[in-house]
Amino acid sequence: MICSVDVALLTVHQGALAVALLEREHEPFAGALALPGGFIHPEEDQDTQAAAVRILRTKAGIVSPYLEQLATFSGPGRDPRGWSLAVAYYALVPPEVVAGSGCGRVVLRGASEARGLPFDHGQILAAALARVQSKSSYSSLPVYLCGETFTLPQLQAVYEVVLGEPINKVSFRRKMEELGLLEPLEGQLLAGKAHRPAQLYRLRPQFRRRLALTDRGLNPGGGGR
Amino acid sequence: MICSVDVALLTVHQGALAVALLEREHEPFAGALALPGGFIHPEEDQDTQAAAVRILRTKAGIVSPYLEQLATFSGPGRDPRGWSLAVAYYALVPPEVVAGSGCGRVVLRGASEARGLPFDHGQILAAALARVQSKSSYSSLPVYLCGETFTLPQLQAVYEVVLGEPINKVSFRRKMEELGLLEPLEGQLLAGKAHRPAQLYRLRPQFRRRLALTDRGLNPGGGGR
Repeated sequence: MICSVDVALLTVHQGALAVALLEREHEPFAGALALPGGFIHPEEDQDTQAAAVRILRTKAGIVSPYLEQLATFSGPGRDPRGWSLAVAYYALVPPEVVAGSGCGRVVLRGASEARGLPFDHGQILAAALARVQSKSSYSSLPVYLCGETFTLPQLQAVYEVVLGEPINKVSFRRKMEELGLLEPLEGQLLAGKAHRPAQLYRLRPQFRRRLALTDRGLNPGGGGR
Repeated sequence: MICSVDVALLTVHQGALAVALLEREHEPFAGALALPGGFIHPEEDQDTQAAAVRILRTKAGIVSPYLEQLATFSGPGRDPRGWSLAVAYYALVPPEVVAGSGCGRVVLRGASEARGLPFDHGQILAAALARVQSKSSYSSLPVYLCGETFTLPQLQAVYEVVLGEPINKVSFRRKMEELGLLEPLEGQLLAGKAHRPAQLYRLRPQFRRRLALTDRGLNPGGGGR
């Protein structure tokens, strides 16, 4: 049985969610753009999560601040080589991390426009987008798409990109306060173009490795899950 | 690599959530009580979900009305035979289905008291319980633990068993109305002992295969996810 790991790595690019693709070096589908993926190496991977970390690092040159198991996809039809099983993960990274990956192999495509991906990568990507959107409405998940420091308007813009709709500024700020995950960088303001300077924030240390959750979503009327 | 499927099958027994265990026939852990599980059979299983259905049917004699993928567990330490990967599922069944399984092999244990399970089955069970509890507060999931017909007090009792706390009767009835998933069985009342007869309900056909979701949980103050 073929056992692999595939990763839907998402970032923000040109004001929209983008997915990182790599050109496949080998058959099947040599030359096609696909999600980063590879076989599990039992002799070196402590588990499938470690395999996903290794594959992102070695194939895309990326260390993701957030990596979560999505689901396992399997069956006789997803890989022309035979019955296969892929443990799928999704990762969120700030644009700077993709730009600085150094390997120059990563191709970004609009996440909702990526078509014709090989294997069942289209299905894996769709599942990743659904999970990120649903989870973002009631958690700090989109923060992982931001760089180390950001202003509240910048963070709100990232939330809007992920949720796919405008958010009320007042309720957004209330929600961020309720989550209690941000700390201001004292005396550091970002000078905007047409606006007055905005306070810079960063994640409190205790939230750099775990999500903050809210009891109610950002869009109480909109079926936030 | 060892690739298997394990199923945490939950039901209601003696007023609490119970997990179905089977005595293992072979090494490792022969004779121990464990979650139903088995190897994936690529020649007959269309995917891992089909493998889970087959294993429940052949080993426990049970066809579950609800079966969902939970997560994949993997690593060198979970099985003494070597690096292994288990795609874990959870299933919900009414007590009648377990009692009528006919194979007589299923042993029920209180789900929160089952200790010393082999492999990482304790961890899989804990993940299943967390998922069921979190999902139940905003969906119709506990309905799958009820028989074909039930009264509202019976359904509320099942929700309370799953959520582990009392629910306000008025808000429970409002939530059920909002979900719109029940239909009364005309002219059918269940005579209670000390109470007046209660209306019998069943699931509307369109909800027998899919969950109804609410935007807000049953316990707005209690972190319903």
